[in-house]
Amino acid sequence: MQIAIVLFDRFTALDAVGPYEMLCRTPGAETVFVGQRPGPVRNDRGDLALVADHRLDEVPAPDIVVVPGGPGQTAQMENGTLLDWLRTADAASTWTTSVCTGSLLLAAAGLLEGRRATSHWLALDSLAAFGAEPTGERVVTDGKFVTAAGVSSGIDMALTLVGRIAGDAHAQAVQLGTEYDPQPPYDAGSPRKAPAALVDKLRAGSRFILR
Amino acid sequence: MQIAIVLFDRFTALDAVGPYEMLCRTPGAETVFVGQRPGPVRNDRGDLALVADHRLDEVPAPDIVVVPGGPGQTAQMENGTLLDWLRTADAASTWTTSVCTGSLLLAAAGLLEGRRATSHWLALDSLAAFGAEPTGERVVTDGKFVTAAGVSSGIDMALTLVGRIAGDAHAQAVQLGTEYDPQPPYDAGSPRKAPAALVDKLRAGSRFILR
Repeated sequence: MQIAIVLFDRFTALDAVGPYEMLCRTPGAETVFVGQRPGPVRNDRGDLALVADHRLDEVPAPDIVVVPGGPGQTAQMENGTLLDWLRTADAASTWTTSVCTGSLLLAAAGLLEGRRATSHWLALDSLAAFGAEPTGERVVTDGKFVTAAGVSSGIDMALTLVGRIAGDAHAQAVQLGTEYDPQPPYDAGSPRKAPAALVDKLRAGSRFILR
Repeated sequence: MQIAIVLFDRFTALDAVGPYEMLCRTPGAETVFVGQRPGPVRNDRGDLALVADHRLDEVPAPDIVVVPGGPGQTAQMENGTLLDWLRTADAASTWTTSVCTGSLLLAAAGLLEGRRATSHWLALDSLAAFGAEPTGERVVTDGKFVTAAGVSSGIDMALTLVGRIAGDAHAQAVQLGTEYDPQPPYDAGSPRKAPAALVDKLRAGSRFILR
């Protein structure tokens, strides 16, 4: 089972590595980081580089596609090479997934029309422009499309998917192995839970925190 | 404020990238991935590579040290270059931190003697051999040493530290920006919560899931 995780300039690292760390533990998984060019791909802050081991066209038919988000997503919205690859890969895939603003790339490729989907809470409204139906849930499954909300939500998305593919018992083993028993020191992780003033502040100047 | 994240062969990717994604958002943070040699460093499964942008000796006095764990930690326990660097860096640091079996490297460097500390639940007992006092908590702070339990716990550790350094309001902004509102599909993320049979299975054959 081949899992392709797409990298592009200025992606958000946890969007890619969170799902990776869960999905790579699916029995029979072969995980491949792909990019337009092979080699190091810098993240949204420029101080982290993950290596794309293969070009997109070397991995044309993965079983699972994972598209992270990040500030760099904007520049990719008109990247025909990437959008074409997403369409081709999706035609072969069993599961097509995204984290954060990665769903906007799936949407721009025309894959989410009429589908329920999610994204980073600050980007959620943008999905509708592509004919998707935005929902504020953390993990949204519609057919073979599994989209996750912002950054850290890819972990929940991927663990959910491990359960669908390999069964609940295996997914629980992955959860225990990665000691995924989250205990955030605050309860401000969604716009419904954070102080309203903080939500407004991020809405007004979101780049400071997203970048 | 310089944050050094240590990479070594066969580290666990989320151990490093989870804390990174939180800590890099501390005001004034400059994050540097360091390794014995600069260049790509492969993780525990060999299918992910993060780039070490600097050699250890190029970053002798970081403000924060982050040591991930992973199966590769075992081979590092007698790596004098790394252990020497940990001691030197710790002498200058404001915070010295670890995730998962990274705490065993801090312990091997002699830094956790008489300190309360944690590690991956399967490795917890090993801490005592180095004079540390193992505790099963997810995030343990003892003086300037902040150790986290397995893999995913580095996110909680780092967000806790962001709060200590930059204040609760900023840490909540980071939590909201990264939409860290975890909703695991199962409740099996610690040996106290997972089915006993599963805990026994991982104890018996832990390599299958940790590797």
